[in-house]
Amino acid sequence: MGWQKAMLDKLAHTFQIRNKLLRQGLAECLGTLLLVMFGCGAVAQMVLSGESHGRFLSVNLAFGFAATLGILVCGQVSGGHLNPAVTFALCLLGREKWRKFPVYFLFQTIGAFLGAAIIFAEYHDAMYDYAGEKNELLLVTLSVLFLIYNKSSLIVCILAIVDPYNNPIPQGLEAFTVGFSVLIIGLSMGFNSGYAVNPARDFGPRLFTAMAGWGGEVFTTRQCWFLVPIFAPFLGSIIGVLVYQLMVGWHVEGEVRDNKNKAKEESLKLNDVTSKD
Amino acid sequence: MGWQKAMLDKLAHTFQIRNKLLRQGLAECLGTLLLVMFGCGAVAQMVLSGESHGRFLSVNLAFGFAATLGILVCGQVSGGHLNPAVTFALCLLGREKWRKFPVYFLFQTIGAFLGAAIIFAEYHDAMYDYAGEKNELLLVTLSVLFLIYNKSSLIVCILAIVDPYNNPIPQGLEAFTVGFSVLIIGLSMGFNSGYAVNPARDFGPRLFTAMAGWGGEVFTTRQCWFLVPIFAPFLGSIIGVLVYQLMVGWHVEGEVRDNKNKAKEESLKLNDVTSKD
Amino acid sequence: MGWQKAMLDKLAHTFQIRNKLLRQGLAECLGTLLLVMFGCGAVAQMVLSGESHGRFLSVNLAFGFAATLGILVCGQVSGGHLNPAVTFALCLLGREKWRKFPVYFLFQTIGAFLGAAIIFAEYHDAMYDYAGEKNELLLVTLSVLFLIYNKSSLIVCILAIVDPYNNPIPQGLEAFTVGFSVLIIGLSMGFNSGYAVNPARDFGPRLFTAMAGWGGEVFTTRQCWFLVPIFAPFLGSIIGVLVYQLMVGWHVEGEVRDNKNKAKEESLKLNDVTSKD
Amino acid sequence: MGWQKAMLDKLAHTFQIRNKLLRQGLAECLGTLLLVMFGCGAVAQMVLSGESHGRFLSVNLAFGFAATLGILVCGQVSGGHLNPAVTFALCLLGREKWRKFPVYFLFQTIGAFLGAAIIFAEYHDAMYDYAGEKNELLLVTLSVLFLIYNKSSLIVCILAIVDPYNNPIPQGLEAFTVGFSVLIIGLSMGFNSGYAVNPARDFGPRLFTAMAGWGGEVFTTRQCWFLVPIFAPFLGSIIGVLVYQLMVGWHVEGEVRDNKNKAKEESLKLNDVTSKD
Repeated sequence: MGWQKAMLDKLAHTFQIRNKLLRQGLAECLGTLLLVMFGCGAVAQMVLSGESHGRFLSVNLAFGFAATLGILVCGQVSGGHLNPAVTFALCLLGREKWRKFPVYFLFQTIGAFLGAAIIFAEYHDAMYDYAGEKNELLLVTLSVLFLIYNKSSLIVCILAIVDPYNNPIPQGLEAFTVGFSVLIIGLSMGFNSGYAVNPARDFGPRLFTAMAGWGGEVFTTRQCWFLVPIFAPFLGSIIGVLVYQLMVGWHVEGEVRDNKNKAKEESLKLNDVTSKD
Repeated sequence: MGWQKAMLDKLAHTFQIRNKLLRQGLAECLGTLLLVMFGCGAVAQMVLSGESHGRFLSVNLAFGFAATLGILVCGQVSGGHLNPAVTFALCLLGREKWRKFPVYFLFQTIGAFLGAAIIFAEYHDAMYDYAGEKNELLLVTLSVLFLIYNKSSLIVCILAIVDPYNNPIPQGLEAFTVGFSVLIIGLSMGFNSGYAVNPARDFGPRLFTAMAGWGGEVFTTRQCWFLVPIFAPFLGSIIGVLVYQLMVGWHVEGEVRDNKNKAKEESLKLNDVTSKD
Repeated sequence: MGWQKAMLDKLAHTFQIRNKLLRQGLAECLGTLLLVMFGCGAVAQMVLSGESHGRFLSVNLAFGFAATLGILVCGQVSGGHLNPAVTFALCLLGREKWRKFPVYFLFQTIGAFLGAAIIFAEYHDAMYDYAGEKNELLLVTLSVLFLIYNKSSLIVCILAIVDPYNNPIPQGLEAFTVGFSVLIIGLSMGFNSGYAVNPARDFGPRLFTAMAGWGGEVFTTRQCWFLVPIFAPFLGSIIGVLVYQLMVGWHVEGEVRDNKNKAKEESLKLNDVTSKD
Repeated sequence: MGWQKAMLDKLAHTFQIRNKLLRQGLAECLGTLLLVMFGCGAVAQMVLSGESHGRFLSVNLAFGFAATLGILVCGQVSGGHLNPAVTFALCLLGREKWRKFPVYFLFQTIGAFLGAAIIFAEYHDAMYDYAGEKNELLLVTLSVLFLIYNKSSLIVCILAIVDPYNNPIPQGLEAFTVGFSVLIIGLSMGFNSGYAVNPARDFGPRLFTAMAGWGGEVFTTRQCWFLVPIFAPFLGSIIGVLVYQLMVGWHVEGEVRDNKNKAKEESLKLNDVTSKD
């Protein structure tokens, strides 16, 4: 897989942002996006399902764990404030510089804006159901979109959890953190498609129920969903990988590489000086 | 207990799989089986009990913690993907080799298939109840089967948590992880028999209630259950031990032993060379 | 406080059990007692309150965290099996000796018996309410008893968590573990008196409400409860300290002291030998 | 920002309390305040919302995690008892000195009193709603006050979690702890304003909904709230910073600084002595 490695290296070089404050802003943006997407998603799910798929406790759990995941995704890069008032408190105490405040505020607001937009797109069909109008084609399109969002959220969280350059989780707690990611996706987005983020988890039981004489109707009611949950998650994976790498991954990796190169150059210079002597 | 140790060693040698990829596939299979069994079990319990023994939040918790436990069981061996889309994302980033992808996909699907089959067998009686037909003998047989499944799930989780060769849990967090295992068995399988996985927990209170004048009717309504929850768990233990050792335990132990032997042989050769000199 | 230290040392010597297997049995007994008391308490609370103070999810959470706490209390001493089938599985794998099995089974059953007896005593009044008979004096006596049980459970858990000789919790996670203890006491025993385990938490708000013009009626309805939640917890503390020290604490401390003394003696002998040479 | 640092240092010197027992009392006071505020807040929320914004399980979770957060805030300074009966048990075992008992009892009671007072102020408007009387101006004032309390609670928790001098959380678990803080604020205070503690989380989605054609009515119903959730949290930040620094932060920092200065002086003296020789 030499060409894959070469291509990945090239991508990493192309998209690496060297300005530290901008990189921190992007990380805050992604963290706040996750916080708002999961938190407001849980609210949307509770309201639109008429409290059958979530109650006030689910919303509380979703916001709490959304904060956890948001901080895990961006904490090593930007400190994981996710909230201008937290940035403000830390500036007030002299723990962060004041010039960070407007940048963080801006990117946190952009993240919250994008998170709300995603939730709107996801719950569009439920809103139409709620409102009484239906357009089968639109709904299918949106459901597929939803599956991709859903999956890509999980991938973003998992990549942050296992990223060797951005890994704040103590050894052995990754399993718990992935568990929380799955929990929160269910709490905030499980209403639309029932967790269809895992092709194996979908295809295996479907095969069994088909073989046991039930056919596919037990788990699904719409025909077009037969192939979608098996293939859409892979598309979601690609998007998740891109989002995480563009907003956090490549910059962190790049910095480590830059530091190594610098250290190597300096040791070379030193050797040079030493050998001249 | 010399003969026990000898027999265990023999079993370990017989069943050790030396092909790493196959071993990883088996581990992924067991992890995905647990994920689907616990997750879909919670769904079955919610639906079949008419939401009295679980609501949407329970299903979310069950899927979240099922992911945690699935990863804990197979993580050290196979990475704990449990999901072809996760394998795909990691291949895409060059963190896993592409040839793993078809193998993992296959075994993850087999695991999900088996998990669904177990849930079907477990909730068979509730499904009959739901459907209105009853066959007392069949129900009793299934309940005993269920108890054994139930117990063996707990044993598989506990063996993974305390396995000295496959132990990713930080010192002191085993207690929490066992707690999560008990929680999830209740969330996904507690409806059928009310947690009858612990002979002491069953026999002690039964004795007390009998002595306090209530007799055994407070905790149980079917007569045949008097001895079952006391003896079935031991049968479940044996099955749990076999499942874990066949799919994960003996291969990991074996690898450690093989590496030790190799190191010893090499040091012997070295000694040989040194002594010849 | 010289006399206090002297008395504590004397008590520790008097009650220290030197037989390791008996000590492990006692620890298993206490752990299983906590498991059954918290778990069955949650069931009793759910049933007797007509599902207003607990549902199936609460029972699941209670059993899960009860297992966590039970293991934390006895894990360092006996391994924290709490369940004969777990002991059986570990014997089967050759990780524990078979002679432990009958002892553990016996003490686990005794613990479960005692746990059930405590729950019976605690929910006696609710059972009378449920049954329609009332005896004001008996109820008050039982409520006070209940408060003492309740408090002493919390103290047993906290002593295990902060015991320097039996402390399996990683630095910094004690706070979480105490939080779980409070959670589980609420889940399994909160119905009777609404968490009256903390004199300050009771007296402070009562003072405020009295000063704000409400008087004591907001938080309590029975007159006799005015002083009880302030003084009963201290009695509970004493019982909790005794239970923990008699069943786990003094034996663990004693073993550490014995080992130290032995090491000292041996080094003395060695010095003796050395000086003779 | 030279003047900011100078001012912060001056404040730290002015407010540093050097008496250890008084400092421990203050820390216990803050911890118990948080415990009672979060715990009783959850009760108030459950009762006043007619169980729509919390049930018995939420109250249990709130008390459990309130204990966790209370101990995290004051644990490094005072041991985090939060409860006179815990202090009593530890004195009984000789692990704390008896003279601590009256001081801790006093400050724990003061903290519980203040916590109850805060909850009363926060739920004043809901109580008026409940009672049927309404005064729009009073309600708005109270809502703003509430937002500031709400925010300042979050800031107090976060400052304790990230305080370099008072940080008991293992590396990498800060994210979980912040998640718990957000969860508990929702569980105990989410009823009044729906988590309006984060200006970005409020302003971003509001902007999106306005742009998507809904206007601001989706998330809010009272007009005056348009600017409040954006600016009030910053005021809350200032109060949170003051509360934490006055009650815990500056004393801990100060002690570290005092110890450093003493060490420096001693090494100077030693140098002096050495150089004289």
